[in-house]
Amino acid sequence: MVDHNVTFDTVAKPVTVPTGTLLAEAAHLAGVEVMQPCGGQGRCGRCALQVTKGMIRRRSSLRLSPEDIEAGFALACQTVIEGDVWVSVPPQEKIERRLTTDRTVAEVEPPPDYDFRFSQPIRRLCLTLPQPSLEDQTDDWGRLQIALRQRLGVNHLRASLRSLQQLATALRQDNWEVTVVIEMLHEESGQPIEARLIAVNPGRCSGDEPLWGAAIDIGTTTVTLWLVDLVTGLVRAQVSEYNGQIARGEDVISRIVYSSKDGGSAEMRQRVLDTINNLLVTACKRVKAVTGEVVKATIAGNSTMMHLLLGIPALSIRLSPFITVVNDIPIQTAYDVGLNIHPEAIVDCLPGVASYVGADISAGVLSSGMDDTSQITLFLDVGTNGETVLGSRDWLVTCACSAGPAFEGAGVVDGMRATQGAIEEVWINSQTYEPTYRVIGGGQPRGICGSGLISLLAEAFMTGVVDKAGNVNLNLDTPRVRQGEHGPEYVVAWASETEDHQDIVLSHVDIDNLLRAKAAIYAGFTLLADSVGVPLESVEQLLIGGSFGKYINVEKAIQIGLLPDMPWERFKFLGNTSVKGAYLVLLDKNARQRLKEIASRMTYLELSADNSFYDAFMSALFLPHTDITRFPTVEASLVKKTNEPVQ
Amino acid sequence: MVDHNVTFDTVAKPVTVPTGTLLAEAAHLAGVEVMQPCGGQGRCGRCALQVTKGMIRRRSSLRLSPEDIEAGFALACQTVIEGDVWVSVPPQEKIERRLTTDRTVAEVEPPPDYDFRFSQPIRRLCLTLPQPSLEDQTDDWGRLQIALRQRLGVNHLRASLRSLQQLATALRQDNWEVTVVIEMLHEESGQPIEARLIAVNPGRCSGDEPLWGAAIDIGTTTVTLWLVDLVTGLVRAQVSEYNGQIARGEDVISRIVYSSKDGGSAEMRQRVLDTINNLLVTACKRVKAVTGEVVKATIAGNSTMMHLLLGIPALSIRLSPFITVVNDIPIQTAYDVGLNIHPEAIVDCLPGVASYVGADISAGVLSSGMDDTSQITLFLDVGTNGETVLGSRDWLVTCACSAGPAFEGAGVVDGMRATQGAIEEVWINSQTYEPTYRVIGGGQPRGICGSGLISLLAEAFMTGVVDKAGNVNLNLDTPRVRQGEHGPEYVVAWASETEDHQDIVLSHVDIDNLLRAKAAIYAGFTLLADSVGVPLESVEQLLIGGSFGKYINVEKAIQIGLLPDMPWERFKFLGNTSVKGAYLVLLDKNARQRLKEIASRMTYLELSADNSFYDAFMSALFLPHTDITRFPTVEASLVKKTNEPVQ
Repeated sequence: MVDHNVTFDTVAKPVTVPTGTLLAEAAHLAGVEVMQPCGGQGRCGRCALQVTKGMIRRRSSLRLSPEDIEAGFALACQTVIEGDVWVSVPPQEKIERRLTTDRTVAEVEPPPDYDFRFSQPIRRLCLTLPQPSLEDQTDDWGRLQIALRQRLGVNHLRASLRSLQQLATALRQDNWEVTVVIEMLHEESGQPIEARLIAVNPGRCSGDEPLWGAAIDIGTTTVTLWLVDLVTGLVRAQVSEYNGQIARGEDVISRIVYSSKDGGSAEMRQRVLDTINNLLVTACKRVKAVTGEVVKATIAGNSTMMHLLLGIPALSIRLSPFITVVNDIPIQTAYDVGLNIHPEAIVDCLPGVASYVGADISAGVLSSGMDDTSQITLFLDVGTNGETVLGSRDWLVTCACSAGPAFEGAGVVDGMRATQGAIEEVWINSQTYEPTYRVIGGGQPRGICGSGLISLLAEAFMTGVVDKAGNVNLNLDTPRVRQGEHGPEYVVAWASETEDHQDIVLSHVDIDNLLRAKAAIYAGFTLLADSVGVPLESVEQLLIGGSFGKYINVEKAIQIGLLPDMPWERFKFLGNTSVKGAYLVLLDKNARQRLKEIASRMTYLELSADNSFYDAFMSALFLPHTDITRFPTVEASLVKKTNEPVQ
Repeated sequence: MVDHNVTFDTVAKPVTVPTGTLLAEAAHLAGVEVMQPCGGQGRCGRCALQVTKGMIRRRSSLRLSPEDIEAGFALACQTVIEGDVWVSVPPQEKIERRLTTDRTVAEVEPPPDYDFRFSQPIRRLCLTLPQPSLEDQTDDWGRLQIALRQRLGVNHLRASLRSLQQLATALRQDNWEVTVVIEMLHEESGQPIEARLIAVNPGRCSGDEPLWGAAIDIGTTTVTLWLVDLVTGLVRAQVSEYNGQIARGEDVISRIVYSSKDGGSAEMRQRVLDTINNLLVTACKRVKAVTGEVVKATIAGNSTMMHLLLGIPALSIRLSPFITVVNDIPIQTAYDVGLNIHPEAIVDCLPGVASYVGADISAGVLSSGMDDTSQITLFLDVGTNGETVLGSRDWLVTCACSAGPAFEGAGVVDGMRATQGAIEEVWINSQTYEPTYRVIGGGQPRGICGSGLISLLAEAFMTGVVDKAGNVNLNLDTPRVRQGEHGPEYVVAWASETEDHQDIVLSHVDIDNLLRAKAAIYAGFTLLADSVGVPLESVEQLLIGGSFGKYINVEKAIQIGLLPDMPWERFKFLGNTSVKGAYLVLLDKNARQRLKEIASRMTYLELSADNSFYDAFMSALFLPHTDITRFPTVEASLVKKTNEPVQ
């Protein structure tokens, strides 16, 4: 095997790798961050680097033009090194780090019937132990057990070896005065009372210090963490950050692909742990706590996120028959999971239902309360995976469909996430076809985010810029419709108005992706309703979860056929229902029990099991739908606006 | 801080250390093994190295002669480096590695009422799981749980994250045929049945493979391991090896001192783990198993050994009021303890009673059966710590005294362990004072081991070579008594007969150390009997444990006043009672319960609590005792032999 030097223009020293090494690997070794949104499958073209000199072999050049190749551009994930190579790293879109919420005071109230002593199992005690003497030679561990038996009736105390290793020092440091944190395991009356030691800290406690817990939602895109005072139930800090795994794939499938490569699973695990651990530092700093004081964490997330967090192989999620390794994960310690909180802290990874209906959905159902209502309820998590739950307190069915990331701004030429500079709402003048738009943070636009895309597509359809099949009408009398690089397109913003001095457009390809995303979601919930024989009209409330859901304009979402055509008052936007569910479970062991019941009650409908999903999906690939009678208010508006019957 | 190079003549490259570094530390860094039997306290002089050039500072030069110092010798544990230094490493006594037993077929039978299905909690099952399909999307973990519920009624299955990480691969590798090993936790009728997953291995099992367990005794000097087939209860291999910690201290106190230094605890832990892990490899090789197939270990040992094994600070054992951190250690996994068996294997560290009455003694009581007899029984573990238990099925009292290592050949000029070349028995002609001796392995003698020392001292006393105060009678008409370097001495073997061509002697100092050791043990058990008002004569059986105990000649041990003067048929030598106890617990959960009861039933008498120990000890510092009437058979022999009354 011959070794070669690879020199990156942004790095001082070359790295040495053997013949056949992937350029992406060499970049990784050199510390050059290369985005791989498709997970290194050579699909997205985002990892292109410019090889200015040297021998390489391209396995694939998809998404590279002949000119690109001429100029030395090569896909880092598809190019192997065969000699000394010099590489120029083009300026890349940086992952913007943004805190979606920045509140220090909670907007969330603890559950009304919440009672610290009984609802959550962690207790803190201030103990002064009798000192040992020649007359009382009880061992340290026995001394602690006796005190806990006297104070709480604990008959059996568990402890890790780590706890025992630190016990002697902790007890003696402050003269046998200690603050002890334990988890009560079994305390039914009449049964032996069992507990587990979490922490023994030297020194007396005043008794009114907070006892910290963390409720965490690991989203494919965003990780959200609430820091909670377990004594009062108050949320004391709310923080969010992009999931560090994004650089290795934007959807769960890409991440599973990446994680199945050599070392990929460990890297994915470390990336999300880094994200969570950073959030913990930020949140704790805000309340002047240290992360080691956090003694419990509850974690929700889709099944892929849970598997990647725990280093459990996720491959079976992607391959037929699409099963997880584990839906209901046994309780772990922070040490084993890798969270930088107290090593003995409880980590409760909440139970999911199936590969594509994870703990984020069962937690969402819990916090939405739909499992405890008599009303027939449709719960929709609008996101990459498009999970849906239908039911009431008597029954629950669920399904998921791969909607793709279009509504999150990915897979769309000028798409972007809902950050500074994103067009989030658009109006089109039905006479002049001139648009008006609103940009997040004001200022010049840089692209269009999910809610902007929904708004834009709806307006374009309602004004006739695109027809019901999604084709741009090039016959309109406006320079904004034109033949572009990716087929017919509509110009939303001219280069002169934009930050990058390039036109922002909605292309035929973009429309195609948006249609596919909305069709998948619509097909999902309609099939689900069909499967249990419930007509959509009889759904009494429609709950929309996911932080994305907060920004959707209902009218426009109905106009493109993403949401069903129902009275607007039946829709409720709940925000991040997943982290809310994790919060409830953190505080209340009854909520934990209820969550387990929800997960086991939900009947999962596998959409890929027969052809009906394909049929429903194809029918929904129109604006708003092949069958316009399903959208009577849209039909009425079209009649009103165009003054002619829609065919 | 200035750095210096330290060059050892036995090592190719110098090591670099800052000013003030201990020579012992530099040697450790360079990989030079320096014996420190006293634990680095500067007491024993065994770590002397020769500094041929360079700046050093000696904190202490105890045990070094002015000539030694002139020649550059310095105690590695007491010498700091203050400049570039060159060191010559003198040839050292190597620790001999010897297998005390080498049997492949068991001499131990499983307990008569042993029944695999009910007595020990580990089960192995051969399972063929139904394969997942689009119709049956149960997750892997749920699939396994359902199978175990159907087969064994397990309602609740625990698993570590490590097990979950490996589950998917194990299930799929052999097409959903697996061999599962679980530990049953609660299986009382009427209660939920709980279990813990130990192993999932791909492939069908025939059902008659052995299921391996290890019973381990960690002695201060020797570690013993029995490899046991948990299905049949047969001991399939017995192996022993010196405890690797010996190089850092020969008694528990030296080891505690060493372990309290920086890095000392970790080193001590690793040393004993290395010893055990090597024994596991040897034992498994003998039965053609691999260590990963061992799924349970029970460990007995004195409290210091247990603390050092687990990395729990042992300092409080040494300091008044002499308490342990933990007597009854919660169940651990092999992964946490650091044993190279199956990472999920149960490691049950057996419960001890106090700092100086450890799990080796409670296990000894269990295997001796003294807790279940109506006879008043004295159980004696003759060793460095001299533990004693007195009682019957109705009551148990225990104490320990620091006898010192004299009976193990340490602290005696020509003392050595009971290996090849050790004089193990001596007879002295009462007319000529010429000795006859037996050497282990035949051949030329190199020194005297414990049983040899007892025999020699008894003979010397009975023939008048030493008087009852232990003084050598220099007036005898033989060149074998003489004034030596360490005071009056008796020559057992002339230089011409010995391997090292040096006289082997019993010196006044040696006799002193032996008297102290036997006096401590005698004082211990007499005081213990006194404390409960039981006259020694009413002891119906006297059980002697410890592998050392096997070699003691009862008559001689009585003659020096180590054992009480009783009819010989009351003595029973049980061998290693500690590993036997561990073996019983490995197989039988009722034995485990009984052991716990034994440990909690034993009343511990702290001998340092008042002056009576000192008084009894002083009275026993004679041969056989100040009060000769306590040893009527010895008195009678003396009268017969010398034909004159003993004063």
